[in-house]
Amino acid sequence: MTRVADVRAATAAAGIDALLLTPGPDLRYVTGYDALPLERLTCLVVPAEGEPFLVVPRLELPAAEHSPAGRLGVEFVAWDETDDPFALVARRLGPVARVGLADRMWAMQSLRFRSALPGAEQVLAGSVLRGLRMRKSPAEVAALREAGAAIDAVHAQVPGLLKAGRTEREVGKDIAEAILAAGHATVDFVIVGSGPNSASPHHELSDRVIQAGDPVVVDIGGQMPSGYCSDSTRTYSVGEPPADFSAYYEVLRRAQEAACAAVRPGVTCEAVDAAAREIIADAGYGEHFIHRTGHGIGLETHEEPYIVAGNTEPLAPGFAFSVEPGIYLAGRHGARIEDIVVCTETGGARLNDRPRGLVEV
Amino acid sequence: MTRVADVRAATAAAGIDALLLTPGPDLRYVTGYDALPLERLTCLVVPAEGEPFLVVPRLELPAAEHSPAGRLGVEFVAWDETDDPFALVARRLGPVARVGLADRMWAMQSLRFRSALPGAEQVLAGSVLRGLRMRKSPAEVAALREAGAAIDAVHAQVPGLLKAGRTEREVGKDIAEAILAAGHATVDFVIVGSGPNSASPHHELSDRVIQAGDPVVVDIGGQMPSGYCSDSTRTYSVGEPPADFSAYYEVLRRAQEAACAAVRPGVTCEAVDAAAREIIADAGYGEHFIHRTGHGIGLETHEEPYIVAGNTEPLAPGFAFSVEPGIYLAGRHGARIEDIVVCTETGGARLNDRPRGLVEV
Repeated sequence: MTRVADVRAATAAAGIDALLLTPGPDLRYVTGYDALPLERLTCLVVPAEGEPFLVVPRLELPAAEHSPAGRLGVEFVAWDETDDPFALVARRLGPVARVGLADRMWAMQSLRFRSALPGAEQVLAGSVLRGLRMRKSPAEVAALREAGAAIDAVHAQVPGLLKAGRTEREVGKDIAEAILAAGHATVDFVIVGSGPNSASPHHELSDRVIQAGDPVVVDIGGQMPSGYCSDSTRTYSVGEPPADFSAYYEVLRRAQEAACAAVRPGVTCEAVDAAAREIIADAGYGEHFIHRTGHGIGLETHEEPYIVAGNTEPLAPGFAFSVEPGIYLAGRHGARIEDIVVCTETGGARLNDRPRGLVEV
Repeated sequence: MTRVADVRAATAAAGIDALLLTPGPDLRYVTGYDALPLERLTCLVVPAEGEPFLVVPRLELPAAEHSPAGRLGVEFVAWDETDDPFALVARRLGPVARVGLADRMWAMQSLRFRSALPGAEQVLAGSVLRGLRMRKSPAEVAALREAGAAIDAVHAQVPGLLKAGRTEREVGKDIAEAILAAGHATVDFVIVGSGPNSASPHHELSDRVIQAGDPVVVDIGGQMPSGYCSDSTRTYSVGEPPADFSAYYEVLRRAQEAACAAVRPGVTCEAVDAAAREIIADAGYGEHFIHRTGHGIGLETHEEPYIVAGNTEPLAPGFAFSVEPGIYLAGRHGARIEDIVVCTETGGARLNDRPRGLVEV
């Protein structure tokens, strides 16, 4: 119940009358309930004053009661197939001026809440939860560390899977199986970008046959049974890479080191981005680093804080995020190196420790 | 481009100035683009007047161009990491009075659109798309038929997997693998409810050991590479079931038959629900049929039309939905039988054909 109490206090402090949390990472963070996102409304209502309650379709009641939410001492309010659960929430809440919606609430629900609570301004629950969710507890850091070790175990197998003559898709299928075998509950993404595809940061898998001399970007992650996510990138080379590739790979490696080394409490997110970007720009590759340096990670693979120019949020102990600069020569080749880093009291701790030098396979 | 043109015409006819379609089934329906739902905005803008355009993070541009959306002749508008894509949409759209949001658009996006388009009323894109999406084309029916055959192939294996002494979770793991082996791209849900768990309609998997004499509800489904979903339930019995179970199972079977037989153009959704419900109520089990009779299915497992009391929508050729009455004796046992049915010109065609009688294993 501590987390619910913290959330309630933060809701009141933010001048919001109630949070409305539908299934997704916000609900899971507050209650531990990994509810399926369905068209039938499940919603934890956290009023700034008064007791929280969980509105749940009667059909989902046993699942909700057996979930960690069943141990919170929160009242469960079941609704039947022909009830209007939005009206039910409005009735129980009474007059409210401002409600915070789960950041991932579907429009089919947020617009129904707008009608059911016509006087209420809608804001994001994230405005209340981000401060709590960004600052990972020791238990959350341990869960991220476990996820990091699991994805490292997969990267350790990648050199054995990458061979000239195999397609990206074949390699990707083996990696997906290894992600599950390493203890993840789900595979979230498998990027195997070979040769020119390594220059497309969000390339996934294709039927391209890997060639000798190809750089291969392998960016992989999944969600552990705990709900916490892994995400790590290494760049491999099948045989000897092109000479110009090797030149910028060393620049990239220095940039990623510098950004990791910049992490400590009080440093802004944009300063971590700049630490990587300056080294890449100084070496003349600035225009080829076409994305932000990183994203927060926790119950979502991408969450706050974003490590991007313009984000003046100062880091604090418990913040966890990726540091993943990349250099991409469109149509030719590219590289990226990514670790998850946690801000500690004094600096940063990486949760991935596979070798960061170019691995020739 | 035909589907985009149809959607544009329907948008204009609905008095909506533009649809804003973020990743999800609405976007996939209109463009074929199965975009990852990410915090960076991807959004197809379909103005009632003027040309549609796809706003896409520069990072996702190659993936978007290689997707089916790349063949539609729609303009792609890439945005960079420090751009404001909501302002970009607002600028290109010009003044609008009413916009339709993808039904699953996240609040983190719908509230940003509210700020970027402050004068615009937000309604659901579903109000425009539902009429198109409910009425499946012959190609969509073929895709659903393929999905139905795939899940039937899994049910054919279930008798060999269900054994006293195995846990629900062990059986569920085998079923999940079989769902993928049968050609699905993803496993969407695996319900194995044995003994008293069969009385909880949305029970998933537990470590309960299956016992001789247990009824077991197996409700399974996945998404095919086409995007179309499967969903079918059969109830099995491990050895001879309790006598009172057998009594109501036959009632359930008649109810499911009656609801399937009621399907034809012009009949309302609620009449199909009533066809099942009356038989169950007449036999004295009305209070034990605690959910609606079914849900539409297509690119989503649950979509319109819902086969539920109060839904006066008349069926039309191409409507596809589940018919899945159930009877649940809380704490004891329960049963459900589910087929996907497509409304034809003259009646209904089932897309699942595994035996519906109780299968003793």
